[in-house]
Amino acid sequence: MTFQEKLRAAATQNQSLLCVGLDPDQAQLPAAVRDQDNPTLHFLKHLIDATADLVCAYKPNFAFFGALGERGWPTLKATLEHIPPSIPVIIDAKVGDIGNTAEHYARMFFEVLGADALTVNPYMGRDAVAPFLAYRDKGVFLLCLTSNKGAEDFEQQQLAEGPLYLRVARKACEWNTAGNCGLVVGATQAGAFTELRQLAPDLPFLVPGVGAQGGDLEAVVRKGTDTLGGGLLINASRAILYASGGVDFAEAARRTAQQLRQQIEACRTT
Amino acid sequence: MTFQEKLRAAATQNQSLLCVGLDPDQAQLPAAVRDQDNPTLHFLKHLIDATADLVCAYKPNFAFFGALGERGWPTLKATLEHIPPSIPVIIDAKVGDIGNTAEHYARMFFEVLGADALTVNPYMGRDAVAPFLAYRDKGVFLLCLTSNKGAEDFEQQQLAEGPLYLRVARKACEWNTAGNCGLVVGATQAGAFTELRQLAPDLPFLVPGVGAQGGDLEAVVRKGTDTLGGGLLINASRAILYASGGVDFAEAARRTAQQLRQQIEACRTT
Repeated sequence: MTFQEKLRAAATQNQSLLCVGLDPDQAQLPAAVRDQDNPTLHFLKHLIDATADLVCAYKPNFAFFGALGERGWPTLKATLEHIPPSIPVIIDAKVGDIGNTAEHYARMFFEVLGADALTVNPYMGRDAVAPFLAYRDKGVFLLCLTSNKGAEDFEQQQLAEGPLYLRVARKACEWNTAGNCGLVVGATQAGAFTELRQLAPDLPFLVPGVGAQGGDLEAVVRKGTDTLGGGLLINASRAILYASGGVDFAEAARRTAQQLRQQIEACRTT
Repeated sequence: MTFQEKLRAAATQNQSLLCVGLDPDQAQLPAAVRDQDNPTLHFLKHLIDATADLVCAYKPNFAFFGALGERGWPTLKATLEHIPPSIPVIIDAKVGDIGNTAEHYARMFFEVLGADALTVNPYMGRDAVAPFLAYRDKGVFLLCLTSNKGAEDFEQQQLAEGPLYLRVARKACEWNTAGNCGLVVGATQAGAFTELRQLAPDLPFLVPGVGAQGGDLEAVVRKGTDTLGGGLLINASRAILYASGGVDFAEAARRTAQQLRQQIEACRTT
């Protein structure tokens, strides 16, 4: 089953465009998990159990596992093994390198860790993206227009053909011969969604920035869904993970995920 | 001691602008190390022992350790511990992300692994670079103009002010308030070195692409050195690591490193 098929199946089964980002920040873990042997893993397992029927995907963020040092790898591996096989996993590592190096990143994330999809930085161009797209059953989300202020510095700079991020979107369509490419588009960039969706009618958009960063959910869903009313993965991390710092962290995460999923569904049907 | 000071001291002591990239590809390890308990570590320790008096820095490539799975982290850690403390270590991971995520990458590479410097992808702009530059004693090499063909796709695209990579170089200078920023400039882009050096007279340039990729060493050294005749780290990986597939792999690596170091020195003095 390809990433796209798995994503559609999960989105349909859970009636959800919600992707939960797994960013286990040690400084924010609830006190209730801190005396566990592996607090991060304990925390994430409970979070996954509490939300797995509400999401279309999980997005573990590699940085937060890497910062754990030698416990990082086994913790990430055990987290991935705890995610139900029907839910696709996008590892957020924003890698980008050429040739042999890219092949080793692809092996690391797709083969050794078994991720269904990966975020990739397009700055170095086609030969930094192709080794990932060569895994035809895996998803590759290219950074296009991100939700942060720094998007002005390069992504939104004007070329003769328009801003750089539109060129990234055009190239993504050109390189998408296996139908496994997607784009990362920040929810704070609601003004860009109409043009990006016209340019890339079939690419899934991974959309961070609706929670803490204050993106406009209604505009994102209205302008960003594809012709089938899908093709969006609305990501929330901190708002769900740290909904409560108490013993009820998993229940609070579930409630918040439920609300956000329902808000998204309400936008889809209006 | 800052990264810049450590780099200058090592370059002076070893009279070298040569940086050796540590890209331990399992498919290319010499037969002689394959029956070791940890072939990668055994291989790299011998390589480091054979070259440590010839280099100004080592550049371990994270992908090749990551692809080892759970052995990756302890192998990378043990490799770093084997590098003499006087030689600076640049981890090549080309990370780039914002806020809390960038802080976790910085912690992972600078604090937990103890690297002296890191390669960073600038696509997401200032807030994806600032958390790394905030470590004032550490070096941050921004991808500017890379050696691969894909550099045409985005890096060399024209803005009103010139190609995108020149804007990256200008921004690097602007953001370099702590004097710890550098640029990655591919050796195959010899035509760009004069302008980049004018624009960024004091930034160190990390230069891959002289070996397998066929960059013009003489032009790079002539145009790329700073006013003190330094400021360059000429990287070679495969050409040195896999100079011989036999039991003499370390001696062969040393000979190749010596030749390349001497070629660079010859270009510096002409």
